[in-house]
Amino acid sequence: MGASTKQGYDIALKSREIVRSLIGDKIHHLSPEEKTIVERIVHSTADIEYAEITRISTDFVQESVISLKNGEDILTDINMVRAGINKYEGEVNCFISDPETIKLAKKNEITRAAAAMQLAAENGFKGIVAIGNAPTALYKVMELVKTGEMDVKSVVGVPVGFVGAADSKDALSATDIPHLITKGPKGGTPVAVATVNSLIRLSKDDLDY
Amino acid sequence: MGASTKQGYDIALKSREIVRSLIGDKIHHLSPEEKTIVERIVHSTADIEYAEITRISTDFVQESVISLKNGEDILTDINMVRAGINKYEGEVNCFISDPETIKLAKKNEITRAAAAMQLAAENGFKGIVAIGNAPTALYKVMELVKTGEMDVKSVVGVPVGFVGAADSKDALSATDIPHLITKGPKGGTPVAVATVNSLIRLSKDDLDY
Repeated sequence: MGASTKQGYDIALKSREIVRSLIGDKIHHLSPEEKTIVERIVHSTADIEYAEITRISTDFVQESVISLKNGEDILTDINMVRAGINKYEGEVNCFISDPETIKLAKKNEITRAAAAMQLAAENGFKGIVAIGNAPTALYKVMELVKTGEMDVKSVVGVPVGFVGAADSKDALSATDIPHLITKGPKGGTPVAVATVNSLIRLSKDDLDY
Repeated sequence: MGASTKQGYDIALKSREIVRSLIGDKIHHLSPEEKTIVERIVHSTADIEYAEITRISTDFVQESVISLKNGEDILTDINMVRAGINKYEGEVNCFISDPETIKLAKKNEITRAAAAMQLAAENGFKGIVAIGNAPTALYKVMELVKTGEMDVKSVVGVPVGFVGAADSKDALSATDIPHLITKGPKGGTPVAVATVNSLIRLSKDDLDY
């Protein structure tokens, strides 16, 4: 799980064993790949509730892994999520601090997080979107997919917070977009990062896609 | 809370009101500054358990704010934490990917997170340490403070995980180092970031330190 020294590796291994013992019975219905993702989320948050609130659409792993194998882009809503994704050979982008995003947000009276999604779409984005913070970014992605303005292969939709986050994730789960969400207000950058890093790992394994 | 557009600001304000209604009775014993910090942690994680597991030493806010007012450095264990700290005029450093850190980790058979703390100390670090991930980094900081090799004004000690995290935080709370910790396995980068950003905000207010 990102460990690069023997001590780090031993810690990661022991943690994975503990996680399995804590949540194994709650995720027995998942595929091996889905289990790997949920285990990594729980490892990253030390919050076993994620075993119950994480929902993965049936096509999510396959569509995401194909996108990564094809070297498509990963787009994040905030820099914290980008900073945590560190083993992908393709591009990992975040436009929240881009001057164009700031202009677009002011012009359209939308949040910077939403404007950053729009900017990516205008620049021909194709790939996986990972949203760990802003419900407004998630709504914007759904809108851009609906109008055919954005080529999204899957969405890691785990915005966090008491205002709008739960509703935005429910809305995503009602679409045809391959997705992973967390039900309710919980979610956040570690969940987004754990999911994407898990997908990157899966894309390097010899899976039969 | 970092919002820079009207819509973002409205969401942040409403969230803060909800957080207050959810945890107000659990944090009545805290100072106004400490309340601000815990509210921001709960806002960032949507996890009200943090109102109960966050422990703040009496000198933590004052020592941290003085350090920030003096423009001292902030040192983080991983890049995700650094990426979330975006409104400080001083330096925010993370050495986990520094070639010197990697060498040091291999030579001393320690984790990269721990080696990154040692490297900072060797380079004359003075200021606030924020650890959102690695217990090994926290232990290293305590060791370097004890031997007088590191000038630490306060520690945001919120490593996460089922292996070592809780023990490392209990160890920190038994020292004289001004600190904020989260009891148990929970913690993580959003908690570290929320705490530091809250301190930065407090350092810009007219507090009588």
